[in-house]
Amino acid sequence: MAFSIDALKEKGRRMRIDSLKATTEAGSGHPSSCLSAADLMSVIFFNEMRFDPKNPHNPANDRFVLSKGHAAPLLWSAYAECGIVEQEDLLTLRRLDSDLEGHPTPRMPWVDVATGSLGQGLSAGLGNALAARLDEIPYNTYVLLGDGECAEGSVWEAAALAHYNKASNLYAVVDVNGLGQSQRTMDQFDVNRFAEKFRAFGWFALTVDGHNYAEILNAFEKCRREGGDQPRAIVAKTFKGKGVSMLENLEGWHGKPVPKQDLPKALAELEKPLGPNEFKPNPRTGFTLPAAPVEVHIAVSRKPGESAATREAYGDALVKVADKDPRIVALDGDTKNSTFSEKLLKAYPRRFFEMFIAEQNMAGVATGLAARGKIPFVSTFAAFLTRAYDQIRMAGVSQSNVKFCGSHAGVSIGEDGPSQMGLEDIAMFRTIPGSVILYPCDAVSAERAVEQAARHKGICYIRSSRPKTAVLYSNVEQFPIGGSKTLRQSANDRVTVIAAGITVHEALKAASKLEADGIAIRVIDAYSIKPIDADGIVAAAKATEGRVIVVEDHYEEGGLGDAVLDAVGNQAKVVKLGVHEIPRSGPPDALIEKYGISSSHIVSAVKQF
Amino acid sequence: MAFSIDALKEKGRRMRIDSLKATTEAGSGHPSSCLSAADLMSVIFFNEMRFDPKNPHNPANDRFVLSKGHAAPLLWSAYAECGIVEQEDLLTLRRLDSDLEGHPTPRMPWVDVATGSLGQGLSAGLGNALAARLDEIPYNTYVLLGDGECAEGSVWEAAALAHYNKASNLYAVVDVNGLGQSQRTMDQFDVNRFAEKFRAFGWFALTVDGHNYAEILNAFEKCRREGGDQPRAIVAKTFKGKGVSMLENLEGWHGKPVPKQDLPKALAELEKPLGPNEFKPNPRTGFTLPAAPVEVHIAVSRKPGESAATREAYGDALVKVADKDPRIVALDGDTKNSTFSEKLLKAYPRRFFEMFIAEQNMAGVATGLAARGKIPFVSTFAAFLTRAYDQIRMAGVSQSNVKFCGSHAGVSIGEDGPSQMGLEDIAMFRTIPGSVILYPCDAVSAERAVEQAARHKGICYIRSSRPKTAVLYSNVEQFPIGGSKTLRQSANDRVTVIAAGITVHEALKAASKLEADGIAIRVIDAYSIKPIDADGIVAAAKATEGRVIVVEDHYEEGGLGDAVLDAVGNQAKVVKLGVHEIPRSGPPDALIEKYGISSSHIVSAVKQF
Repeated sequence: MAFSIDALKEKGRRMRIDSLKATTEAGSGHPSSCLSAADLMSVIFFNEMRFDPKNPHNPANDRFVLSKGHAAPLLWSAYAECGIVEQEDLLTLRRLDSDLEGHPTPRMPWVDVATGSLGQGLSAGLGNALAARLDEIPYNTYVLLGDGECAEGSVWEAAALAHYNKASNLYAVVDVNGLGQSQRTMDQFDVNRFAEKFRAFGWFALTVDGHNYAEILNAFEKCRREGGDQPRAIVAKTFKGKGVSMLENLEGWHGKPVPKQDLPKALAELEKPLGPNEFKPNPRTGFTLPAAPVEVHIAVSRKPGESAATREAYGDALVKVADKDPRIVALDGDTKNSTFSEKLLKAYPRRFFEMFIAEQNMAGVATGLAARGKIPFVSTFAAFLTRAYDQIRMAGVSQSNVKFCGSHAGVSIGEDGPSQMGLEDIAMFRTIPGSVILYPCDAVSAERAVEQAARHKGICYIRSSRPKTAVLYSNVEQFPIGGSKTLRQSANDRVTVIAAGITVHEALKAASKLEADGIAIRVIDAYSIKPIDADGIVAAAKATEGRVIVVEDHYEEGGLGDAVLDAVGNQAKVVKLGVHEIPRSGPPDALIEKYGISSSHIVSAVKQF
Repeated sequence: MAFSIDALKEKGRRMRIDSLKATTEAGSGHPSSCLSAADLMSVIFFNEMRFDPKNPHNPANDRFVLSKGHAAPLLWSAYAECGIVEQEDLLTLRRLDSDLEGHPTPRMPWVDVATGSLGQGLSAGLGNALAARLDEIPYNTYVLLGDGECAEGSVWEAAALAHYNKASNLYAVVDVNGLGQSQRTMDQFDVNRFAEKFRAFGWFALTVDGHNYAEILNAFEKCRREGGDQPRAIVAKTFKGKGVSMLENLEGWHGKPVPKQDLPKALAELEKPLGPNEFKPNPRTGFTLPAAPVEVHIAVSRKPGESAATREAYGDALVKVADKDPRIVALDGDTKNSTFSEKLLKAYPRRFFEMFIAEQNMAGVATGLAARGKIPFVSTFAAFLTRAYDQIRMAGVSQSNVKFCGSHAGVSIGEDGPSQMGLEDIAMFRTIPGSVILYPCDAVSAERAVEQAARHKGICYIRSSRPKTAVLYSNVEQFPIGGSKTLRQSANDRVTVIAAGITVHEALKAASKLEADGIAIRVIDAYSIKPIDADGIVAAAKATEGRVIVVEDHYEEGGLGDAVLDAVGNQAKVVKLGVHEIPRSGPPDALIEKYGISSSHIVSAVKQF
């Protein structure tokens, strides 16, 4: 043990005081949630974890994830006790100009992954643990969870995957204070039930009194001795508001700071020092990560007129970028034979993570891997990415470097029917600040999309299709983010048709049909939906006297149509062709006909202009 | 026992044959997944369940949810064996004009809730079970799950809530065939592990050989005798493709029909009758549900100039509509003191369901309750509804009569920071076909929004705000879906400003400031974001020479701005004011200033025109 129990108790006391002062000063926050976890936090930070407070980038630092993100003041206080932040800064909690936010975000260098939406921290922790395994660095990851958030299914997804991956370098510490936000939790103080749940999911689990330092310390020791290849759970019985009698174990105090006038009384109960105030870091050193490669470039070698599915080209390109950049890894949700991420499994088995049918955890693990410098490519059916929207949203808050690929886009998947059709995925990813959305229409542009995503810093979404389509582009064509391609153009174009993915082919068919009728149209492949090539689109609209048709295999709300409307504003009359009702099962061609996005519908829309 | 084991085996054989024939005919589908579950299905449908095949609306019918929705052919076959559908119709599986879709949807009268996105059926089942409890009708709900889908956290959310609610009328039957889509599952054939997981979550759980009828029957009997007040799980070891040697327990057959040329050989292995072909329904009768009330009308009695939060008005109105319509129930995710759904808990405790911090399950349970004729109002923070997007998407596919309320919309919540801010919720709900989105700006319109939602048939989303705002409308003002209100208007309006919710108040402040500068603006409260009052907005745009500003406390993508753009097209120049980066913690007024949606920004935008 690094320090005396008394020194650890003293850190716990100081962190309680900091949490109370900061939240009272801010006029908001969750002090009672901080107080229940202060003793656990002290043992984790000042005894268990090995890290260099002066160097957040030391690759061998132990990692900490505050899954119960509303206890942020406790984290900021721990940082102050390590010297990571200044003591006086703690009182700037929640201010507009402070990086000490109400819930942790990576504006703070030591915070890898934003938390505050509950139940997501264990997934991020698992991502860290898997990165450690991959990089062969023996750091541990500690995740502090609340009990209320263990109702979130994502916690049990992470638990199952942690067991499956033998993540013995992952610790879940659960602060069981029995009180949720609006009432007592389902399991209240039944720490044995929590432990039984973890054991049923394959963890080594112990229960402790979360305010008894000797018990907590012994529990970590026992985990080390007996945990074997299992992930470790320490389930701690605690009291919300512990240490302050006006708060302790009382309902109605969640998210409420101690009023200014009551603060002195509360602090008085904590004024007696409990031990020496000392902390000496014990970093793990001597590990380095390889330097990041120079920008990734791949070679594409499709044959013109070749027919290939963009989803399969995704798989091909995934291997190619992985050849060039060792940071690239892939995750999939038991769809790897459909998304073709299985090609990376074959080429680099250590760098492929089968995440099974649990998309929330898959997205969360990816953010953890990205925090450790990996470049994760996450794939499943586009429709099933909606399962992970909250995790994707939080990845956005973290500005995480995760790439997503949603396959089986649109009604064009055919007979499987609406449950399997991605029809809202573009809308979902458009809402993520800074996201890039690429929707390639052929195998060449699909490979280039993967290449772009691998290079780009930030969230990327690639939409891939199930059916085979003709190769349209030459192998050396480049597809910069924010660009578009004009596939048909003449001096007499009457209408601009903007499409992406599967509808590009419909638009080209329509162009041929219209040509036979003496009508020329401009066809634009808007492969970069976000950012969209606003200038290019506006120019084309002007050249066709403001007549624009947008056609997409997606609902009409929030997709390519809305992106084009946003780009052109009132500079064009835009007709949107998209899906506008719940589709049904049927053959692909019949469905694109029925749902108004086929070449015949494009022809009609052009003629109607 | 209703029938001889041999008769049940014969039903199993017939359902295997039907599944093979239908999928081979369709050229797609999941026969191997049907074959593993056929024996379980036979016992459930032809021995356990009491229902009237002639009357899907008998309120006392036992309920069935096919959580592993890809086994739809098995369900259609069971229906044929009951006489619900015609035998020959089974060969129309997946055709464009057939209601026998690839995955079950409520196009088929007996299917309450669309499935096919895995891990959602147990929540829907729990909703049914809770409805039975509420209506005091002793029907049981049987949910057939796959093993792969038990990786989905939503299953464990449902499991926890089922235990908490003592749902002894809920049965989960798990078809453990050890094979997922792309590889073997995590737990493979370890049925004991599955059972231990269910027991850890508080269920009564048994394991059986899923192809041994005596064992399956005895297990149900034992559940009845010993299950007590616990929900019941029967975990069955099965073989994917059971009964056909070219399929049985072999990888690589997920989602693949037997090729036409191989079908005779496969069928030959199943040609020997196993017993008499007989089924006699044993419906439970004598229960009725009260007639639905005539349209709900509530009385609103706010004082002008009163200051109230729309979230609190939501709570008030929830009680008022519940007074008028006994079908109304409420669900909340441990935020009831923030969303004010707690007011319904106080008024009608039996009709309030605390769903704890598990939003996926909450949404799924709501679809189950709605299938049983309840009108569920589901509330939590708007940001956390993203956790349930896949369930909301599937509620859309089911055209479920569920109402959602997302509180704490936008940056205007203040210091809690981005993890708690709903900034993409309007975009999310816009993608649900047929959805209604209402965003009231004051307490009167908030109460009317609840009234409208209670009356409307289909998914409704109400967005509520945290801060108190002034009451603007008179108590008798009506707020029809698809309407808007013009709050400021003159003959000299230069610009139309369209707002909703919190930004209506900013727009009014801006109007006053501009008035002092001699500039008149039209202010429209677009409380109905979907469907939007396109005619009204276009008329206003024309009256202000095409100058339109839209201001929303939401990201710029997919929200009110995009809805307005879609409505006006090129008939106006639309300037969108919305949030366009990840926000941070800070005081509400400072945040709306910083993120460009305050009255001063509206004033600047008007002046820039």
